Amino acid sequence: MSLTVESQCVTFPSLELDCGVRLLNVDVAYETYGTLNPEHTNAILIHHAFSGDAHAAGMSTDGQPGWWSNMIGPGLGFDTDRYFVICTNVLGGCRGTTGPGSIDPSTGTPFGMRFPVITIGDMVRLQKCLIDHLGIKKLLAVSGGSMGGMQALEWAVAYPQCVAAAIPIATTARHSAQQIAFNEVGRQAIMADPDWNEGNYYDGKPPARGLAVARMVGHITYMSDASMRQKFGRRLRDKDAFGYDFSVDFEVESYLRYRGNQFVSRFDANSYLYITKAMDYFDLSGGKPSLAAAFDSTTARFLVLSFTSDWLYPTYQSLEIVSALRGRNIDVAFCELPSSYGHDAFLVEVKEQTEMVRGFLDSVYRDVHR
Amino acid sequence: MSLTVESQCVTFPSLELDCGVRLLNVDVAYETYGTLNPEHTNAILIHHAFSGDAHAAGMSTDGQPGWWSNMIGPGLGFDTDRYFVICTNVLGGCRGTTGPGSIDPSTGTPFGMRFPVITIGDMVRLQKCLIDHLGIKKLLAVSGGSMGGMQALEWAVAYPQCVAAAIPIATTARHSAQQIAFNEVGRQAIMADPDWNEGNYYDGKPPARGLAVARMVGHITYMSDASMRQKFGRRLRDKDAFGYDFSVDFEVESYLRYRGNQFVSRFDANSYLYITKAMDYFDLSGGKPSLAAAFDSTTARFLVLSFTSDWLYPTYQSLEIVSALRGRNIDVAFCELPSSYGHDAFLVEVKEQTEMVRGFLDSVYRDVHR
Repeated sequence: MSLTVESQCVTFPSLELDCGVRLLNVDVAYETYGTLNPEHTNAILIHHAFSGDAHAAGMSTDGQPGWWSNMIGPGLGFDTDRYFVICTNVLGGCRGTTGPGSIDPSTGTPFGMRFPVITIGDMVRLQKCLIDHLGIKKLLAVSGGSMGGMQALEWAVAYPQCVAAAIPIATTARHSAQQIAFNEVGRQAIMADPDWNEGNYYDGKPPARGLAVARMVGHITYMSDASMRQKFGRRLRDKDAFGYDFSVDFEVESYLRYRGNQFVSRFDANSYLYITKAMDYFDLSGGKPSLAAAFDSTTARFLVLSFTSDWLYPTYQSLEIVSALRGRNIDVAFCELPSSYGHDAFLVEVKEQTEMVRGFLDSVYRDVHR
Repeated sequence: MSLTVESQCVTFPSLELDCGVRLLNVDVAYETYGTLNPEHTNAILIHHAFSGDAHAAGMSTDGQPGWWSNMIGPGLGFDTDRYFVICTNVLGGCRGTTGPGSIDPSTGTPFGMRFPVITIGDMVRLQKCLIDHLGIKKLLAVSGGSMGGMQALEWAVAYPQCVAAAIPIATTARHSAQQIAFNEVGRQAIMADPDWNEGNYYDGKPPARGLAVARMVGHITYMSDASMRQKFGRRLRDKDAFGYDFSVDFEVESYLRYRGNQFVSRFDANSYLYITKAMDYFDLSGGKPSLAAAFDSTTARFLVLSFTSDWLYPTYQSLEIVSALRGRNIDVAFCELPSSYGHDAFLVEVKEQTEMVRGFLDSVYRDVHR
């Protein structure tokens, strides 16, 4: 059974940001799948990870599958025969929602680095505008992996009355020093590229080399040592012996160069800077006496998932969330799923994840509708 | 008791390389500590890691302690009251031994990228020239951490009659896909810097930004998630609240930028390319039916050490070496030492390491001299 993709964009007159700036004429690109029921009680908001976009499921007009099309669709984990699924491009992004590459209404030119520094809280505040606009008072669930999981957590804390359930996957309640460090390397790689030009490159050449290096670092952190060994090992690329030069010797080098260069064609370097900064700032316990205290007003039920080989967002970070929720007697199910795929597991290791999500949502739906 | 540092350089007329090139007039910078006994049976060759140099112990003339001065000296693990300790700068380096920044005798200008691609085997072949030059027929031991451990392994395999014992620490018998990937990112960061200029920068500005980014990636891999949390956590740098800009917010960002920039003043970017390539090529089992087969002629005794939190050269890689040695009935002791310092542990977590090395060397010395 095919899935109808509704791709839209809506503009909100203004958005207050955590940094104190008021952003004007804010676009939100979003897609929906399935049908909103007359009571508006079957809506699920999906949040994309760092480099994702609003195209989460089905096929785009140019034939691209959504980034979570193995999880969202008829009969899948997020079952579009039953639920109305929404996904937005995040604030600061470069795939339809307002970001540093958008036109600054006050100057008529792209923001570049004049774009204000944003937070996960800001991303969620903009999503709340959309949910209000769609006439949805309470989301059945919020879910996402990685940075998507941070948004799901933020929703449950910022709008406790508007979320029945949250499914944060392969994520953390606060970025660690190592996670900040990897992001900082990516930012420095971009800013070291002279083509970055302090962020003013929209009428010229983008900082392609710097962005490619940043993406290469990212890809290593998304995989596991074991999955890289399995996928590449020490296999040579199109040769039988070492080349004794600095062209490609190993398959893994070829893969990284390819993925790095490919990324440049679909992602804006300034968005890379702003979105990684938002992740680094993310700390659900910020200003609170404890992480548990962050959940003081939360009423949602939780399903928290992590993966054994994910070393970028390791299981102990999911367990910190679980402990904090338990500390406030909040209903939480937790599972560490076995996978060798590393952080990428939430995108590819979907069999058990589907069972977990399906069963949990079924229970939440029955709770809400009884 | 103070330690006398003998710092010298010797030139060899030529060196055959694995790539087929014959390199002419090859300099080797080296230091020695302690006294060679009349029988020449108390010599230990120490190998430095990727960014190290020949200054392993004591104080340099400009007051810098050696990189392993907590392990080499009177009464220390490598006891200079008893042993004659030698350390060379590796081939391809930039601290006195011939490398890409050296003058090419055929042109009178720096080699740059005309320098031939080298291997760990080439580094060891040059060290053998020095050991012959010093009149040492058999080394009591070879030892080093990380890339130093690779050289120790290579010695035991390439010159089995010349090594009584080997102590490879926090190392591997072959670079994995993930290890190659991290090195490739560093190389791409350097080569993406326009100042790299295809390696021709010796009469101009070096590729400082690219080299700094490469070093930042390296530093993350040298530490552990836990040690970064302990050292930096989410502490801000000289501020009480987020700056909402792209200057430094977190301590960890400040540290990485500092270490990256500092590295530029002491290391040559082309050496970075060549030495990482040598590590990536390293595979002791290359061309052999198995890793065990690589040790067919080896007669040395082994002490293999790894560290619990080292995720760059994880314990399983040391265990591969141990298994291969056991498969050839070679005397091997193995210990995984507890540490939260990650890969850096072999440089800083020296208390237990000292006990292990001291006891092992004592036994080897008695074996050799009975």
